[in-house]
Amino acid sequence: MKKFFSAALLCAALIGHAQKNDSIMLKKISDEVLKNGECYTNLYQLCTTIGHRLSGSPQAAAAVEWGYQLMKSYNFDTVYLQECWVPHWVRGDKQVGKIIHSKMIGEKEVSICALGGSVPTPVGGLTAEIVEVKSFDELKKLGTAGVKGKIVFYNYPFDVTKINTGEAYGDAVKYRWRGPSEAAKYGAVASVVRSMTTAMQDFPHTGGMGYNDSVPNKIPCCAISTNGAELLSALLAKDKQLKFHMEMNCQTLPDVKSYNVVGELRGSQFPDEIITVGGHLDSWDVGDGAHDDGAGCVQSIEVLRIFKALGIQPKRTIRAVLFMNEENGGKGADKYLELAIKNKEKHLLAIESDAGGFSPRGFGLTMSEEQKKKVKGWSPLFIPYGVYDFDHAGGGADINDLKTIGCALMGLRPDSQRYFDLHHTIADTFDKVNERELKLGAGAMAMMIWLVSEYGL
Amino acid sequence: MKKFFSAALLCAALIGHAQKNDSIMLKKISDEVLKNGECYTNLYQLCTTIGHRLSGSPQAAAAVEWGYQLMKSYNFDTVYLQECWVPHWVRGDKQVGKIIHSKMIGEKEVSICALGGSVPTPVGGLTAEIVEVKSFDELKKLGTAGVKGKIVFYNYPFDVTKINTGEAYGDAVKYRWRGPSEAAKYGAVASVVRSMTTAMQDFPHTGGMGYNDSVPNKIPCCAISTNGAELLSALLAKDKQLKFHMEMNCQTLPDVKSYNVVGELRGSQFPDEIITVGGHLDSWDVGDGAHDDGAGCVQSIEVLRIFKALGIQPKRTIRAVLFMNEENGGKGADKYLELAIKNKEKHLLAIESDAGGFSPRGFGLTMSEEQKKKVKGWSPLFIPYGVYDFDHAGGGADINDLKTIGCALMGLRPDSQRYFDLHHTIADTFDKVNERELKLGAGAMAMMIWLVSEYGL
Repeated sequence: MKKFFSAALLCAALIGHAQKNDSIMLKKISDEVLKNGECYTNLYQLCTTIGHRLSGSPQAAAAVEWGYQLMKSYNFDTVYLQECWVPHWVRGDKQVGKIIHSKMIGEKEVSICALGGSVPTPVGGLTAEIVEVKSFDELKKLGTAGVKGKIVFYNYPFDVTKINTGEAYGDAVKYRWRGPSEAAKYGAVASVVRSMTTAMQDFPHTGGMGYNDSVPNKIPCCAISTNGAELLSALLAKDKQLKFHMEMNCQTLPDVKSYNVVGELRGSQFPDEIITVGGHLDSWDVGDGAHDDGAGCVQSIEVLRIFKALGIQPKRTIRAVLFMNEENGGKGADKYLELAIKNKEKHLLAIESDAGGFSPRGFGLTMSEEQKKKVKGWSPLFIPYGVYDFDHAGGGADINDLKTIGCALMGLRPDSQRYFDLHHTIADTFDKVNERELKLGAGAMAMMIWLVSEYGL
Repeated sequence: MKKFFSAALLCAALIGHAQKNDSIMLKKISDEVLKNGECYTNLYQLCTTIGHRLSGSPQAAAAVEWGYQLMKSYNFDTVYLQECWVPHWVRGDKQVGKIIHSKMIGEKEVSICALGGSVPTPVGGLTAEIVEVKSFDELKKLGTAGVKGKIVFYNYPFDVTKINTGEAYGDAVKYRWRGPSEAAKYGAVASVVRSMTTAMQDFPHTGGMGYNDSVPNKIPCCAISTNGAELLSALLAKDKQLKFHMEMNCQTLPDVKSYNVVGELRGSQFPDEIITVGGHLDSWDVGDGAHDDGAGCVQSIEVLRIFKALGIQPKRTIRAVLFMNEENGGKGADKYLELAIKNKEKHLLAIESDAGGFSPRGFGLTMSEEQKKKVKGWSPLFIPYGVYDFDHAGGGADINDLKTIGCALMGLRPDSQRYFDLHHTIADTFDKVNERELKLGAGAMAMMIWLVSEYGL
């Protein structure tokens, strides 16, 4: 019994010692990023010299070159590109939305933007009666009789009571994604969706949509600002014959060759075990793509920079990946998985930062229970950095499919309150990013990656 | 033994039931503030129709009237003013700072602002050699020989490695507060202090200072922007005979009558037990005083509004207090304590929100160990709202002295990363406040107050 206690005490002492050493290393990482971090100035470069960078655009090509050169300049062990072919949708120069009263008074212009992937309207635009629905159930009830020849207006507001705004987005985004084809099923000629935000704003939020292949007619679709949606709804309540005019000349051009950008620090003890940290390099073609997802890109590069600056040779291989084409196709993610399978790579963990460069509050975990237990065992180490939430699932659009090859997934969980004020809009610009918040997010990922690199998963 | 287990089970079930009911009430509070909260529009009114409101100014008087009318409009049980006399310092219309090279090239104007309470420079300004110190120790070493007749430049940067920026402020602010008199001890003719922020900016941060009565000569003092401080330091390194010119015509006028504004919901069971929730109504005379501390004022009013909207009659009396003169005197806080003592009031708890209207992350606690244990027992109820940090001391400048009459103290702890980018500057304007973050802070305080009102402390 005495022996047992001695062993237990020794064990506790060792664990205590290990945790103390770990906390010293985490503090070093935190100090390095807060004192010398370069992610904020790197983001400034990306946002101000390139700006937004939709897949297939010249700016996306420039961003690939920027990411490659930047990682080269840091002397990571390997820096390379992964070729992929991406869709090339362009917005065009016409985006006009007008509310037309049935009886009088001329027209009221409202701010709309084409959803990414939308077909254009006929030249000169289309004008039709508009019908408001709050749900697909309401749409179904209207049926062909109520919808045919009309424009469907999805006016489903964000649920403001959800504390994490990402959940409200997850709840509402089906109307943006599936709305056009659902409306087309009943003969609608176009669709308009309320912007995906809790904020009352005058500018619309773009974003991806997907035509359902089983619905033959593809109809043009746009988002309307939340203030525009409120106005439209109020006018519709008074005038059921209200018409809406929309004109857009967006189009889809042939696919374009593009790339993921990958930088690697080679593991010293288990080089074949790969830890991926990434964000996506493409953005929507509005604003700077600063939070979505310039932030995730520069944070991922910063993780490797921190390791190099501190002279840490990781036990496992760490890869920063700037994924191409997250917003409208996921071709970069597909390519990354394809190559991982082809090259028989062993992917231990992938972390994505694609929820904005705000104060980090936790990591979402999608992995085995045993792995979760191990990660949660480290959680006390993160408390001094305000990172406390390990209780949700997580990952990211670019890494989620890596779980099919046994890779554990994490998503950085920043404070979510401001994200959907900016997401996919002209307002997602560099000035909305706070230097310390961005750095703290990079630091939190570097800490987690150091622990996994050191102790496995 | 069996009986014991049955009792224990019953007890656990009752506790579980109570916690479940509590969590339902907390959700109601959260939903109410997120759906119907009025604190954001109230802050908009305060910031845009009144703006900044330094004690003694006409705007401060307007703010008193605004707060009184607003609480009256909510039909709180009682709304009243507490008279107090406050200092009346005015900035004047001259704030000039110039770096003058000893050998050549003319002058470089830099952005400065008088510290609140500073005496003016002579008319036409003063020009003297300037000497940089990083600490009071360095100042002492220079002594009279190195300082007499010169301007002392305190260039002590914020410690960026501190995760909570309030700690960096606490560490650095002594150079703003005590710096002028410390320099005057050695015969300095003026002092300049680096602005209290981690951010590199072109505008200075004002703030209070206090002359030490034991030092007879009061010297004029100002803050210089962080970019200005870097420039001045770099030029000084090359030119030890560098001079600095400053001109300010700030002055202290006779005291002015002003008020705390108090609104009350009367407790149903323990009306004599008072829970105070407050912020300060005055601000510095720059920007809008949006985060500092318009946010705390509208949040405090919102707590009572939430109770009324939900039809909750609190068991204990709840007071929203808009304290006057936190920034440069604390006369409102003094009056509140004086009246509490005079009226033999029993103050159970006071919470202050004076760290910005950002996402709430916790409450700082200054109270007995037993009380802390009780509060921490509630902490799981707060986790769904992102409020997890109950491990620091807390209170607020307006409430701290209430502990002398046995009152427990709490300070709302919002995310601190952005606060000192704005604090006491032209940049502390309404547009820097996020609606949801502000509301969540009010909600967190309402939840805490509901629990204390219900269960005591």
